[in-house]
Amino acid sequence: MKAMRVVEINKPLKLQDVDSPKPKGTQVLVKVEAAGVCHTDVHMRQGRFGNLRIEDLGVRLPVTLGHEIAGRIEEVGDEVIGYSKGDLVAVNPWEGEGNCYYCRIGEEHLCDTPRWLGINYDGAYAEYVLVPHYKYLYKLRRLSAVEASPLTCSGITTYRAVKKAILDPTKTLVVIGAGGGLGTMAIQIAKAISGATVIGIDVRDEATEAAKKAGADYVINASSSNPVNEIRKITEGRGADAIIDLNNSDKTLSIYPMALAKQGKYIMVGLFGADLHYHAPLITLGEIQFVGSLVGNQSDFLGIMKLADAGKVKPMVTKTMKLEEANEAIDNLENFRAVGRQVLIP
Amino acid sequence: MKAMRVVEINKPLKLQDVDSPKPKGTQVLVKVEAAGVCHTDVHMRQGRFGNLRIEDLGVRLPVTLGHEIAGRIEEVGDEVIGYSKGDLVAVNPWEGEGNCYYCRIGEEHLCDTPRWLGINYDGAYAEYVLVPHYKYLYKLRRLSAVEASPLTCSGITTYRAVKKAILDPTKTLVVIGAGGGLGTMAIQIAKAISGATVIGIDVRDEATEAAKKAGADYVINASSSNPVNEIRKITEGRGADAIIDLNNSDKTLSIYPMALAKQGKYIMVGLFGADLHYHAPLITLGEIQFVGSLVGNQSDFLGIMKLADAGKVKPMVTKTMKLEEANEAIDNLENFRAVGRQVLIP
Amino acid sequence: MKAMRVVEINKPLKLQDVDSPKPKGTQVLVKVEAAGVCHTDVHMRQGRFGNLRIEDLGVRLPVTLGHEIAGRIEEVGDEVIGYSKGDLVAVNPWEGEGNCYYCRIGEEHLCDTPRWLGINYDGAYAEYVLVPHYKYLYKLRRLSAVEASPLTCSGITTYRAVKKAILDPTKTLVVIGAGGGLGTMAIQIAKAISGATVIGIDVRDEATEAAKKAGADYVINASSSNPVNEIRKITEGRGADAIIDLNNSDKTLSIYPMALAKQGKYIMVGLFGADLHYHAPLITLGEIQFVGSLVGNQSDFLGIMKLADAGKVKPMVTKTMKLEEANEAIDNLENFRAVGRQVLIP
Amino acid sequence: MKAMRVVEINKPLKLQDVDSPKPKGTQVLVKVEAAGVCHTDVHMRQGRFGNLRIEDLGVRLPVTLGHEIAGRIEEVGDEVIGYSKGDLVAVNPWEGEGNCYYCRIGEEHLCDTPRWLGINYDGAYAEYVLVPHYKYLYKLRRLSAVEASPLTCSGITTYRAVKKAILDPTKTLVVIGAGGGLGTMAIQIAKAISGATVIGIDVRDEATEAAKKAGADYVINASSSNPVNEIRKITEGRGADAIIDLNNSDKTLSIYPMALAKQGKYIMVGLFGADLHYHAPLITLGEIQFVGSLVGNQSDFLGIMKLADAGKVKPMVTKTMKLEEANEAIDNLENFRAVGRQVLIP
Repeated sequence: MKAMRVVEINKPLKLQDVDSPKPKGTQVLVKVEAAGVCHTDVHMRQGRFGNLRIEDLGVRLPVTLGHEIAGRIEEVGDEVIGYSKGDLVAVNPWEGEGNCYYCRIGEEHLCDTPRWLGINYDGAYAEYVLVPHYKYLYKLRRLSAVEASPLTCSGITTYRAVKKAILDPTKTLVVIGAGGGLGTMAIQIAKAISGATVIGIDVRDEATEAAKKAGADYVINASSSNPVNEIRKITEGRGADAIIDLNNSDKTLSIYPMALAKQGKYIMVGLFGADLHYHAPLITLGEIQFVGSLVGNQSDFLGIMKLADAGKVKPMVTKTMKLEEANEAIDNLENFRAVGRQVLIP
Repeated sequence: MKAMRVVEINKPLKLQDVDSPKPKGTQVLVKVEAAGVCHTDVHMRQGRFGNLRIEDLGVRLPVTLGHEIAGRIEEVGDEVIGYSKGDLVAVNPWEGEGNCYYCRIGEEHLCDTPRWLGINYDGAYAEYVLVPHYKYLYKLRRLSAVEASPLTCSGITTYRAVKKAILDPTKTLVVIGAGGGLGTMAIQIAKAISGATVIGIDVRDEATEAAKKAGADYVINASSSNPVNEIRKITEGRGADAIIDLNNSDKTLSIYPMALAKQGKYIMVGLFGADLHYHAPLITLGEIQFVGSLVGNQSDFLGIMKLADAGKVKPMVTKTMKLEEANEAIDNLENFRAVGRQVLIP
Repeated sequence: MKAMRVVEINKPLKLQDVDSPKPKGTQVLVKVEAAGVCHTDVHMRQGRFGNLRIEDLGVRLPVTLGHEIAGRIEEVGDEVIGYSKGDLVAVNPWEGEGNCYYCRIGEEHLCDTPRWLGINYDGAYAEYVLVPHYKYLYKLRRLSAVEASPLTCSGITTYRAVKKAILDPTKTLVVIGAGGGLGTMAIQIAKAISGATVIGIDVRDEATEAAKKAGADYVINASSSNPVNEIRKITEGRGADAIIDLNNSDKTLSIYPMALAKQGKYIMVGLFGADLHYHAPLITLGEIQFVGSLVGNQSDFLGIMKLADAGKVKPMVTKTMKLEEANEAIDNLENFRAVGRQVLIP
Repeated sequence: MKAMRVVEINKPLKLQDVDSPKPKGTQVLVKVEAAGVCHTDVHMRQGRFGNLRIEDLGVRLPVTLGHEIAGRIEEVGDEVIGYSKGDLVAVNPWEGEGNCYYCRIGEEHLCDTPRWLGINYDGAYAEYVLVPHYKYLYKLRRLSAVEASPLTCSGITTYRAVKKAILDPTKTLVVIGAGGGLGTMAIQIAKAISGATVIGIDVRDEATEAAKKAGADYVINASSSNPVNEIRKITEGRGADAIIDLNNSDKTLSIYPMALAKQGKYIMVGLFGADLHYHAPLITLGEIQFVGSLVGNQSDFLGIMKLADAGKVKPMVTKTMKLEEANEAIDNLENFRAVGRQVLIP
């Protein structure tokens, strides 16, 4: 079968012909109908996340990218129960080996020897993808494959970030990078599950407009105003109880922690590669927190899939492309030219 | 009555004669029998915590120091119920005004207009201290005033820090500065309430010895070994699930975050005045957290008082001094010459 | 001033002329603009909640009823900060004395010596009500007094019950008594803060219609179908993850626990006066829970007020009546003749 | 190999010769060195838990009993990592199928199609037991097989029950049936992980003595005093914040809920087969809870194993017997003649 793979770092993905896998035991073979293209794929092709090289994260080349996965079941192993050929499913790619501490406590996405489809296991930039266990599937009822695929990374990531913000109706959440695909998703999720006040921040008017449409109670264009002052004004001086930073660039990290309320949580999602610098006594005296959030666990996967499949959040705007256009799609992300989520259809 | 007060920053406290207050309504007048001397008093006399000046924190001079308070009730206001003259009590000094968001949600120590005894309200370096409401008292049963007084700051601070570590028997806690008064208290509390493995770290053999005696399962002398390696070894590679940093110096902040496990929490308690620098992708990819912890709320106050008064943690070793020796006691702390907690007896 | 008071149990309230109180210290005098009539007032007039007599709950007669309170500040005590004459406010009536264990841990509504306005302290069935501390006030921005008053009991009660259900988008909540004022409020709150699936159950078509309008994903008319079967069908066999029982009658308690999923929570809010009977092994084997929920604490008060004042849940439908019509209003509730929340305007 | 099996309900177990299984994939074959005998085995032999028949719980006969399992690895499947022949291990028998809601959220012991060793899958009353995945193993360091085996049921059950009690140093836990194997284990765990005050209740002096030795702060002999009064006295009127009922008999359920504090939790562990009857308004007004607790999940398994293997709780007193004496051991439990935990050695 055809697959678009990282063969060498810092080089374009290569179209290769690889054997189509055969499922056994609990495994399921899914015919890919949609493979979302994520900013992580930019890092995978580059070979690094900031100072961290992908080989240090356990990645071995060549590997087929594609961790935003939806499609139809083609074949099931002999221990699979409750799923059969033809079922339309989304796939949780953040899989673990099962025995390590994190797997045992239900935080499988942090497995010591992760089996991440599209990262260190072959993913969905291919005609078929092999899923190690049927427990990673979610049967779709209303969503199409194209709508569903970005949820398995962009959706789960923002869902977990919003959960880590521990919101309630008395609290205010700020989303940085509010107008993009992840930003609008984070806003929608926060509105759907928390009752909190949501402020969306972005740097272009079209982006703040998109944030507004996604349900933000307030939006701030950070290029034409002082966002920390604006946040203080909206919150009547208290500051933000939580900030989800989808960038974590030098710029955002140098500005936004100052907008936190006492006990405020700075949820760090972006993998731009910058450093955090902050005066320690301010952390102690304000009891603030800096909190990393990475994709999500099985419980988060169920949460976002159920929420979206029930229509309580709308899927991202998508643009479909051919499997062979994977490099072009990654180029678009790298150069901030992508409009809407790019989804490859093999 | 006599009181030792900060009259000017960066100058010794002055012995002044001030009016003895008269309690009304819910107020209680306590005859001070013990006033612990805390490292915060060094900062108060200096006028700053790192970059932050005490006037920016709402302190107005002159003020009577002394926030580690125990004594006997001298007189009660006419709305006081359940307490009377002669009762031996410890006092929670971290009081708020009641109406702000933090007071209403039970986080009174973070009140927007705090009423902290010994910080911005007159404290216990005096013959009497006025407590605004009897709800801040704890009746002592087994502990003496001298044993109890350090608990209202050193005790509550470490209690809250341990609670924020969210420990259980599968987890490992590292305490930095393990051999000092706060360190041995943190170790004892963790042992008493969590079942976690506890590693104490300090830089002198007497200190690691004290940590061992306090109950640490392991101790590391950081001046004669690589503590991050040692932590990894003890935890079989996983790292520490929580680290309580009682210093937060440039040195500790540059070393110990590297010893965190995935989802590890770095609890920042010390007010040394340094900065935190850390590579942002490591925070996200490991889902680690940096968490400020400041003294404690009413619930923490009850917790530590109950624990200590029931004999489940032993009070700090103390050394009593006269009220008039307050400057000498603060000097000792400033120059790291104090052995045991210094407690003033007016 | 005029006040409608319980003077003798099982007798109509009496209109009495009582002294208008004078606020001092932290107290605030509020001119009542709206006093909601609650089912609890039926019990207060009867003198019992099931087997429990109101004198055993600390009520002493005579007492002015009225715990759903909104109005304008008339006068403030000399220690009041941030509030002044003319402010439109809602009042949290579930006040405590401050010193007991429950007050100290932030669960003031369970105070050992409660000071509940309209229950054992004089309430709002009067021209003025005295509020012991300004921290119990919430300044209204968008809501009128009539809209706000039912929130301080019906609103806070359902808000806390929904919080206790610990919902998320993967879970299903059932609301029993879904079409009434509390039911529609519970449904709206669950929709606004959880993303859960909500099933409303009632016994008349107009009621299920109201539940549907309030946002229920599904409604069941329990008089024309087997509600346990219907719940199992909707949840694909799993059952309800939480059930809020606003009645707790013999009938509901005998039927609905059977509809719980494993780990399901049965939130008991109603005060009908019946008994719970259930086979103990079913509780253990299914890890189900029966959970009492009573009004709410200060944090819940802020939560519901913020949610409603921001327009995220709509206030109850109300019908205004004169203060002197209090008995008629209570009669209507007792005989299930009330349509919409009855609010007295003195 | 030899196995003691339930072939017919209400009849003695039969010694049968069955094929020794062969591990493949992730499976592990363990040579049984210790198989604890649990009260559940009495129910299994009887065929019912109160009103519930074991066939309704998914049990099909014949089945080999034995869910308290420890032994040495005999052989591993080809996908097993990190374990090899000769390793001494304890086995978590509360296994699930993986795909259901409860498995996905980390509550595998409540799996919709459970695979419980010794209940509906063949257990350890045999020479060998087949474990479906190596993730259910715990490598023992200090404990012997005989010491470890009861932990996989009695240990995990009490561990989870204590966790559900949500204790802290301000709270009081009551353990009913305190002097037995589970009772002393519950007391030890509560002491090791919570700092709470623990009251042990039993009906014989030897039993209260054992509870005292296990660390109970107070003990009550319920046959010679009024235990509710005693609990109120010890807690200064507040009552118990949590009660773990290891019996759930008609007697205990009729007495002890009256001893709960406001917000108290009644943790129901025992499977005696009685009914719970309680006045509903008392549940609501006191915000009390009745909470079922059943064995435990993978996280609980790690917790108790780590705690015991680190020596922080002492294993149960055991008495070893031969595999062929299984019926005698079950008889002893049924007739309350067992002293210490009976462990079969095949």
